[in-house]
Amino acid sequence: MNVPLVLTDFLDRAVSLYGTKKAIFTEDRVFTYGELNERVNRLSHGLHKLGVKKGDRVAYLAPNSVEMLEGFYGVFQLGAVIVPLNIRLKPDDYVFILNHSEAKVLFVDQDLYHLIRPVKHKLATVETIIVHYKDEETDEIGYDEWLAEQIHTPFKREIIDENDVCTLLYTSGTTGNPKGVMLTHRNNYLHALTAMHHLRVTDEDVLLHVLPMFHVNGWGSPFYYTANGASQVCYRRTKPEDIFHALKKHKVTIMHMAPTVLNSLFQLYEKEGLDINHDVRVLVAGSAPPPAFVVKVEKELGWEFIQVYGMTESSPFSLISRIRSHLKHLSEEEQYKLKAKAGNPFTGCEVKIVNEHGEEVAHDGKEIGEIIVRSHGVMKGYWKNEEATMETIKNGYLYTGDMGTIDEYGYIDIVDRKKDVIISGGENISSIEVEGVLYEHPAVLEAAVIAVPHEKWGETPHAYVVLREGKTATEQELIDYSRAHLAHFKAITGVTFVEELPKTASGKIQKVQLRKEYWESVGKTGKFVN
Amino acid sequence: MNVPLVLTDFLDRAVSLYGTKKAIFTEDRVFTYGELNERVNRLSHGLHKLGVKKGDRVAYLAPNSVEMLEGFYGVFQLGAVIVPLNIRLKPDDYVFILNHSEAKVLFVDQDLYHLIRPVKHKLATVETIIVHYKDEETDEIGYDEWLAEQIHTPFKREIIDENDVCTLLYTSGTTGNPKGVMLTHRNNYLHALTAMHHLRVTDEDVLLHVLPMFHVNGWGSPFYYTANGASQVCYRRTKPEDIFHALKKHKVTIMHMAPTVLNSLFQLYEKEGLDINHDVRVLVAGSAPPPAFVVKVEKELGWEFIQVYGMTESSPFSLISRIRSHLKHLSEEEQYKLKAKAGNPFTGCEVKIVNEHGEEVAHDGKEIGEIIVRSHGVMKGYWKNEEATMETIKNGYLYTGDMGTIDEYGYIDIVDRKKDVIISGGENISSIEVEGVLYEHPAVLEAAVIAVPHEKWGETPHAYVVLREGKTATEQELIDYSRAHLAHFKAITGVTFVEELPKTASGKIQKVQLRKEYWESVGKTGKFVN
Repeated sequence: MNVPLVLTDFLDRAVSLYGTKKAIFTEDRVFTYGELNERVNRLSHGLHKLGVKKGDRVAYLAPNSVEMLEGFYGVFQLGAVIVPLNIRLKPDDYVFILNHSEAKVLFVDQDLYHLIRPVKHKLATVETIIVHYKDEETDEIGYDEWLAEQIHTPFKREIIDENDVCTLLYTSGTTGNPKGVMLTHRNNYLHALTAMHHLRVTDEDVLLHVLPMFHVNGWGSPFYYTANGASQVCYRRTKPEDIFHALKKHKVTIMHMAPTVLNSLFQLYEKEGLDINHDVRVLVAGSAPPPAFVVKVEKELGWEFIQVYGMTESSPFSLISRIRSHLKHLSEEEQYKLKAKAGNPFTGCEVKIVNEHGEEVAHDGKEIGEIIVRSHGVMKGYWKNEEATMETIKNGYLYTGDMGTIDEYGYIDIVDRKKDVIISGGENISSIEVEGVLYEHPAVLEAAVIAVPHEKWGETPHAYVVLREGKTATEQELIDYSRAHLAHFKAITGVTFVEELPKTASGKIQKVQLRKEYWESVGKTGKFVN
Repeated sequence: MNVPLVLTDFLDRAVSLYGTKKAIFTEDRVFTYGELNERVNRLSHGLHKLGVKKGDRVAYLAPNSVEMLEGFYGVFQLGAVIVPLNIRLKPDDYVFILNHSEAKVLFVDQDLYHLIRPVKHKLATVETIIVHYKDEETDEIGYDEWLAEQIHTPFKREIIDENDVCTLLYTSGTTGNPKGVMLTHRNNYLHALTAMHHLRVTDEDVLLHVLPMFHVNGWGSPFYYTANGASQVCYRRTKPEDIFHALKKHKVTIMHMAPTVLNSLFQLYEKEGLDINHDVRVLVAGSAPPPAFVVKVEKELGWEFIQVYGMTESSPFSLISRIRSHLKHLSEEEQYKLKAKAGNPFTGCEVKIVNEHGEEVAHDGKEIGEIIVRSHGVMKGYWKNEEATMETIKNGYLYTGDMGTIDEYGYIDIVDRKKDVIISGGENISSIEVEGVLYEHPAVLEAAVIAVPHEKWGETPHAYVVLREGKTATEQELIDYSRAHLAHFKAITGVTFVEELPKTASGKIQKVQLRKEYWESVGKTGKFVN
């Protein structure tokens, strides 16, 4: 028997086994999975009435709300495709994405409607806009009333093939237009099965959606937490104070977040403390944190730190860092070094690091190569962009554009984005490695290292630094510090002190932006590093 | 990207992440996953030389040995199909299965070779017989020498489609010839992904293969424990003393076994004690144990008791019993009642209980219906037996032939095999429920209840009973005891005391055999129950 791998299975399981469990929490409301399902059915009936058919695209511009969560399943029941939009884009980006995806319906949160209003006339395919949490300032259809008008009886689902595309996520490319990542039911489903296993998700879990549901490390969570009947806390805002509030109120057990957010949480903890006594695990994707930070999180906060690696194009996870059973004899220090790395492949993922000739790099933790992935989660391709698809998926592997090393134990370390690597005198320097050293300096709150032009070496590392409140450090101090802790060719040669670093929706530092700023300032001052 | 779901992935993961881990233990040898893989490669090269091609069948008649374990992957690399044989059959059964499956090669353990020798001339398709642990009494090829002659370099694998059949398991039908259950790579792979999650398998686990690898609840374990890099203890014999030995020596953390084996272990524990101080979980399939027994296992032995339900035709698991998060408020007594049931569906499994009209029975824990399953694990069909396939898979569901109830919390309880239900005066009586009461009598070691003819009621329950050593009970005592604890129409009306009960290879009591015995004795004595 070949039962298709279709995501609606997961909500069905939650309804059947956890229908009466109070499981979905917003700031002021609580829903059981049964109630969530009724809302999902209303949504599907409503979309059907709006003329949405199998394969049509339905876009969402929303923070982590129950309306966003139910959107997935409501759209899937029609065999339609959900297009969750990054909430930190500019109005014209939305015009591009909505027109490119040919979205028929757009759901938008009242708080974000101001991003759509000025460009509404440019939307070529959107027929209906429906506003979550609508207030009087907006003329569009209000979601609550609209939903209440629909019937909540089971929706007669379309027949869905597991290879049908169900989600279209636009990655904010640093150059050119955003690209739409097509993931199929099968991609998301198989990813969910392995993610729930490796993250040890159970019905006892209480997930706080910290990362946006549309974003890499947050992506997929509406599937595998639902399948397990876990509780899900959907707060539209998740500042550190909100997160602490949820930890206390809902006894949150697991969160996925950007390293910078975890950093902020730790700051708040140091200032205010945190009085909880249940287990918490925190899943961090992105660049490897300094092992010292991992130690702090585990020993001071008492949270289990889990480093993962993934990207939208692979549903997202490919790697997870755990100390494997036969490596428990390593010293605590060595174990923390491994824990800070991106780790080892998930079941069903083949991950290799290859040099420019496609050969695997040495397992020495030093040789840098590009990370390539072959897995059940790898996308079908980019929507209406055959060229980009062919550049990214080659010979059956997804070329991630992330550079990494692999050590003797098989732990992969992400050293940089391909384009962020600094090439100085022919040597590859990982900007992240340099940042790691700067983060250990007591005055440094945040640091970002970029390549800047150098007459002799071609490129040289330059740091953007945010200092800790009440602490000081001079440029020379930080340069000396980096020379003391790194091979000299890797040391920074200059520092720009800033109040804050530009970040993406998920809290990732935007180095493109810094490079742009640097070049602009060079243009203005005529100053060159030498 | 659509990466095929192929089982060799699992060994690849073990080799890549746990290649140097000492993980496979026999009575006197230890292998790392890397070493296991070398043996697997040798096996594949050897089979290739013997002319085994994609799709060919290779049979195994072996207890739980490393030779059996490596057989799976060695055969899969060629795209061939493994046919593991139940080791408790009669020589003529093997003739039927080997000829029916058209097996080309047969691996047989020296200890079981006596079952093949007398019928060797009847084997129509077997070209080569290779003997594990061969001694001088046998003329066939010895496995160790043969394996040593093969090269251990990576085997160039056949291209395998996930829907290719990879395992053919013959179920010992109680009537007619055995039927060959065809499972595909996809069936076994998806089952493995969900099983590893729900059984919480990790690389810290040490599995003792108690149930034969070919048998329902043991089936699939070579896949999902391997994928996770768990240790696997393969003892050719697993009497209670051997199991206790392994628990102490290898710190076994998990075992799958028949309820009767767990019962024997508990007996041994009561007699000898067991001095271990690590966590053990024990997976029991088959008829529901009395909750009192579950309590004893968990509170006295200190092992976690996990009841599961499955059958060969579904790869095998469909149900698992856990106390779900929102039911933890129930009393301990109620929780143990639930834990003793077969439980709730695995992810990706839809399980219903239907009456003879195909309608779902009431969720009252009382109405009895047939359990039907739709899941990723359900077989492709019976090998060369279209008719049996069509009788078993109907309207997209596997009809299990097991009768069950479902309670208000959604917990399914297996009450009987369809053919073991006793119909007395128009009422369905679960033989297992009656046995449950008898098991609570202090003098009863084992009990099996069957339907015997009754002039007035059509059928009536009759018990076969093994008494505990040193204890006594009369027929009338047991009849009275069952009347005191059951509705009167469910009470037994007669008892046959026996030394032991006939059992299958996996320790399941063979009621067909008892019915046959009863009828023969009736024939002899002319005695009828009335």
